[in-house]
Amino acid sequence: MAEDVDALVERLLAGNRRALARILTQIENDAPAGRRALSLLYPRSGRAHTVGLTGSAGSGKSTLVAALARVLRARGKTLCIVAIDPTSPFSQGALLGDRIRMQELTADREVFLRSMATRGNLGGLAPATAGIVTALDAFGKDAVIVETVGAGQDEVEVAAMADTTVVVLTPGSGDDVQAMKAGIMEIADVLVVNKSDLPNADLLARQLRSIVEASRSGRPTPIVRTASALGEGIEALADALEEHRAYIEQPEVRAAHRRAQARHQVLALARQRLIDRVVTMHSGDGRLDDLIAQVAARRLDPHSAADALIRE
Amino acid sequence: MAEDVDALVERLLAGNRRALARILTQIENDAPAGRRALSLLYPRSGRAHTVGLTGSAGSGKSTLVAALARVLRARGKTLCIVAIDPTSPFSQGALLGDRIRMQELTADREVFLRSMATRGNLGGLAPATAGIVTALDAFGKDAVIVETVGAGQDEVEVAAMADTTVVVLTPGSGDDVQAMKAGIMEIADVLVVNKSDLPNADLLARQLRSIVEASRSGRPTPIVRTASALGEGIEALADALEEHRAYIEQPEVRAAHRRAQARHQVLALARQRLIDRVVTMHSGDGRLDDLIAQVAARRLDPHSAADALIRE
Repeated sequence: MAEDVDALVERLLAGNRRALARILTQIENDAPAGRRALSLLYPRSGRAHTVGLTGSAGSGKSTLVAALARVLRARGKTLCIVAIDPTSPFSQGALLGDRIRMQELTADREVFLRSMATRGNLGGLAPATAGIVTALDAFGKDAVIVETVGAGQDEVEVAAMADTTVVVLTPGSGDDVQAMKAGIMEIADVLVVNKSDLPNADLLARQLRSIVEASRSGRPTPIVRTASALGEGIEALADALEEHRAYIEQPEVRAAHRRAQARHQVLALARQRLIDRVVTMHSGDGRLDDLIAQVAARRLDPHSAADALIRE
Repeated sequence: MAEDVDALVERLLAGNRRALARILTQIENDAPAGRRALSLLYPRSGRAHTVGLTGSAGSGKSTLVAALARVLRARGKTLCIVAIDPTSPFSQGALLGDRIRMQELTADREVFLRSMATRGNLGGLAPATAGIVTALDAFGKDAVIVETVGAGQDEVEVAAMADTTVVVLTPGSGDDVQAMKAGIMEIADVLVVNKSDLPNADLLARQLRSIVEASRSGRPTPIVRTASALGEGIEALADALEEHRAYIEQPEVRAAHRRAQARHQVLALARQRLIDRVVTMHSGDGRLDDLIAQVAARRLDPHSAADALIRE
């Protein structure tokens, strides 16, 4: 197997899209071949600009990604797009307008598209997603854009691994900006007010501005107004991405950024490995089932059961 | 400390709301007092009907929860409501209409409201949320409703600990039902088409119906049409919740359900404990920083670093 994988990795590094697609599948499945590939690809990664773009369903983020992709292409950039939102037209079920925009992109050899199902398991999507981004980065395109549905843990995990995180908001979407401000300011490197032709776009932009001003620690987060369906504001968004990239490429910023990304990834993987090992160990001897039965019967609380499980 | 906590737990069990509030804070902070309280409360829990209600921002789920709460109260049920959506009016920033509805509920001694910030950390919100639900359950109300913003991992985790999971969808929200179907069917015990006075509500209900029919394994998932702002369909939703509860209270279903909940909780806690222990152990000796530095410099891949970390 190792030999096959090594050959596949060589072909990926030479720009072969089929080799890339096969390796991505192995990484998604967390197959031994995928791990082997990652160990070879990881040293070759770290050159692409990785962008996480997140927003709720209905925020128009897929259309925005498509429009952004065209602007980046017009600027001569090559790119990969990963959609981990199951509702994204990059995955399936596109509206007609989006589908036409997608076709234009899929016909372009300098754009690689990949969709990932969100996994319904406890481990979260971060470990596999990080591996996918590593492989795409090593593939040698200039930028890797990861589109994810906003809210909660997945958003935080994607932000932790991207160089630049874009949070897309829309006027009147029910997103309450004041209430969200801690979360937004924690992860957003660039804020986008999409559908800015709608009423209340000014209000939303003003609210965001006051939040950004109130939390001035370091670089103020830029706010870009776009109307992705009309193609407006996309050049400004591309500029904001480039400016953020230039910012994080400053040596002292870069070192801290890379360390934080590495820490997040290593701990996410270690957490998954540890629990896999405990489950495997105690599934055989019946100890896990025994503890779970006691908790289910309310004879033991979950904290004490977890302690007992890891103590052994 | 243990004595204080024990006294506080006694007061909680006697129905004291201030004791409950203090214990909830300790559980949220994962303080030793919170763990002690949980070990005492867990054996007293398991009687409330726990309901997870999830939907995107803008789906009207907070208004729906408020309307549902009033119907359940009219049926003589007592309840607790936990909002873990930062944008929920239960937390802050309510619209005027919602605020009035909330006041009606907050004035009612048989309704206990609690909001939780979503945490931006890698561990996810599940462990603390499960503890909060345990304490509320032991407090002795008939139902505990957990409102959470839909999408991704948080949704799955809430579903894993609730007796009944309600997924709220709205017509034309950008939620693509076909694309979401695997995820929906995995977690939803009851489907709600909210804002069913909007155009396309029929279409959405039909799409859901065909998904439910296509995936007939076991009990078909009921689809309830509501217009929460108008108070329509809420009685039918309350009925659907009671029917689902009767279903899972059948002895053979109940045993499997309780085991799955226990397993999920124990493994989530064990995962967190294990990684905390590894981080503590290797922070002192510099090994963690060393591995992270190697990964940041791309001399080592994250999988190999995670393996090295847990091997030691």
